[in-house]
Amino acid sequence: MAKLEVHEIAGAVCAPLGFKVGTVYAGIRKAKRDDLVLLVSDTPATAAAVFTTNKVHAWCVRHNRERLAAGNIQAVLCNAGNANACNGERGQSDDQALAEGVKTALRAAGHFEGDLLTASTGVIGKHLPMSEVKAALPTLVAALGGSIGHGEQAANAIMTTDLVPKFVAIEVGAGKERYRIGGIAKGSGMIAPNMATMLGFITTDIAASQAELQAILTRVVGRTFNCITVDGDTSTNDMVIVLANGASGVPLAGREQEFEQALEYVCGTLARKIARDGEGATKLVTVTLINPPPLGEKIAKTIAESPLVKTACFGNDPNWGRIMAAAGRSEVEFNPSSVVVRLAGHEVFRDGEPTAFDPTVVSAAMKAADLMIELEFLGTPKSEPVTVWTCDFSYDYVKINADYTT
Amino acid sequence: MAKLEVHEIAGAVCAPLGFKVGTVYAGIRKAKRDDLVLLVSDTPATAAAVFTTNKVHAWCVRHNRERLAAGNIQAVLCNAGNANACNGERGQSDDQALAEGVKTALRAAGHFEGDLLTASTGVIGKHLPMSEVKAALPTLVAALGGSIGHGEQAANAIMTTDLVPKFVAIEVGAGKERYRIGGIAKGSGMIAPNMATMLGFITTDIAASQAELQAILTRVVGRTFNCITVDGDTSTNDMVIVLANGASGVPLAGREQEFEQALEYVCGTLARKIARDGEGATKLVTVTLINPPPLGEKIAKTIAESPLVKTACFGNDPNWGRIMAAAGRSEVEFNPSSVVVRLAGHEVFRDGEPTAFDPTVVSAAMKAADLMIELEFLGTPKSEPVTVWTCDFSYDYVKINADYTT
Repeated sequence: MAKLEVHEIAGAVCAPLGFKVGTVYAGIRKAKRDDLVLLVSDTPATAAAVFTTNKVHAWCVRHNRERLAAGNIQAVLCNAGNANACNGERGQSDDQALAEGVKTALRAAGHFEGDLLTASTGVIGKHLPMSEVKAALPTLVAALGGSIGHGEQAANAIMTTDLVPKFVAIEVGAGKERYRIGGIAKGSGMIAPNMATMLGFITTDIAASQAELQAILTRVVGRTFNCITVDGDTSTNDMVIVLANGASGVPLAGREQEFEQALEYVCGTLARKIARDGEGATKLVTVTLINPPPLGEKIAKTIAESPLVKTACFGNDPNWGRIMAAAGRSEVEFNPSSVVVRLAGHEVFRDGEPTAFDPTVVSAAMKAADLMIELEFLGTPKSEPVTVWTCDFSYDYVKINADYTT
Repeated sequence: MAKLEVHEIAGAVCAPLGFKVGTVYAGIRKAKRDDLVLLVSDTPATAAAVFTTNKVHAWCVRHNRERLAAGNIQAVLCNAGNANACNGERGQSDDQALAEGVKTALRAAGHFEGDLLTASTGVIGKHLPMSEVKAALPTLVAALGGSIGHGEQAANAIMTTDLVPKFVAIEVGAGKERYRIGGIAKGSGMIAPNMATMLGFITTDIAASQAELQAILTRVVGRTFNCITVDGDTSTNDMVIVLANGASGVPLAGREQEFEQALEYVCGTLARKIARDGEGATKLVTVTLINPPPLGEKIAKTIAESPLVKTACFGNDPNWGRIMAAAGRSEVEFNPSSVVVRLAGHEVFRDGEPTAFDPTVVSAAMKAADLMIELEFLGTPKSEPVTVWTCDFSYDYVKINADYTT
């Protein structure tokens, strides 16, 4: 099929028709920075989501599974600064009380008939300051708006240890067939049960059935958000939600492949922004396997998560040995002598031994903000390439994580 | 059965009767420090070994498998400074030529009728300086001796990035039933394909059959060397070898359980010394699960390998959230609400929420050189505890690993 032509536009989650966002400071985090975000569709939307697989998960994750099953989702509420996880029974009732409070405020303010999903990120094991948060809800609803500024401010308000806000929006198709997809995301370690939960919220004005939307989202997340790794840790609160409200009048039916590519563009862009902003990161590292053996993803992830590989990337050290040894311990079958390794475009290993390369030249090439690690598997049957994104591992990763809660 | 009474003695691998060691500087590493070690039994010994499971492995690993199958092992040759791995066909012939050269020199020097195992650790992808090494062999054989100093010097000569030599020896039994086990080890990251290969060489003067010795070693390594982790990486060259020469006249038969406990003491001591000396480590971290669910080892290893947990240990941060989240992503089934977490003896989590603990007190307790992380699983069927050892993750880990080869 034809390669999708992508046209980036402004406005993040407000770029698609019929979505509004509001943010407010509700006293959840110490820093006086907006910490509560409400995303509302003008009409109930089709919703799909992917959640953390961590056995230890927050109330919002558990509740959202039930809410999604019931359907009729029209909004998403997200707070930053407190994960509302691992905090006993009160966390459960707080999550539900908050959802009910927002729905009541939305109904009071006008047309709202749907249900609402919740997301939380921040310190775990603490209770939300419920009276302050409840008091802030009318202001939050009053702040709702659909401008470019509203959409991009939402990306700011969900940040925790993130250094930069992460958002993107695109327009696909032309004339009457035009629809939009927008997204915001946060995340800085792939986890940190405390503050670096990975969250992604996507809006689109295409019209889709729940089953189609969920199937496409699951596949796309598998190739994007699930292909980034900062430290191998996953959070109690991770989730990606997509809301499709159909406001463009364009149906998904007949353009499934195009939409999947478009959603992959949005999710992939957000995912790479997260990897590049990994805690203490100085560069985005892309690990690509050409013609990989079956289960090649495991090889790519083992390389991308190896602290030794990641510290070598930080130090611009062309250390192919660590890359090959990480591949070798991935429990995937392959012939080490058939692997060609390229670092920042320079071949460094072939036929089971290092290529005669100039370490100074390769090290200089590794200094770029985008570092490519490529493994090509010769003599194996043709297969699709596998790509995983990560960041390097610096002094600052240790600094950021050595003293967090106290 | 009765708890083994252990009596530590001096001499490392020379403590058991009938073993000699020699070391020499053979020009393999830049620093002028002995880099070639020869361990010889007066008579052919029973040998057992456990090797790296890494698909990318050195010639010595492949050759030793064949040599062990043929039996009649009487010596071990180990060089530090060059892993003789990932260096093409010449690496293979170098390993064999070295083994033959040492056997010839040993035969010329007197009584030697057995075969020899090889081990290498150091930079990978480089060739050994064969002419220098061959020239050093007569000196190496002439240096053989069985004194306490000889045994402990061997622990020094196999070091690479290790900061301290690792050795231990014990005496078991009394009178005519007395036998000894001694060992040396090295390793600093669990890997580093370059320099931090994990090696362990154990000698004993008990008399054992190959099948018994291998079965016991495999079990003991599973509970000791395989329960330490510095960064989750495994090397191309890892191996643990035990030689039993029977010189004490004491047979293994009838004291299998006692010997297994004794070997576990030796291997466990060496393993903890390796974990404590992890690259950049400031403390030994012991992760113990009480009454764990099936596959509890996976929970313990996921906690011990989590960069977020390890940086929190470095920072004396009582961050139970990272511990629970690591447990939760280990893919092992358990009920998070049934877990009690203790840090340095202080309870910090129970019934799905944090205990009311004083972070200042717990943080102060975490400053000890030995930090205990304990998870107790309530309400599950009785099961054996699981213990994994690791170290914390400091600025120096990044410093040591960011710029290694160049």
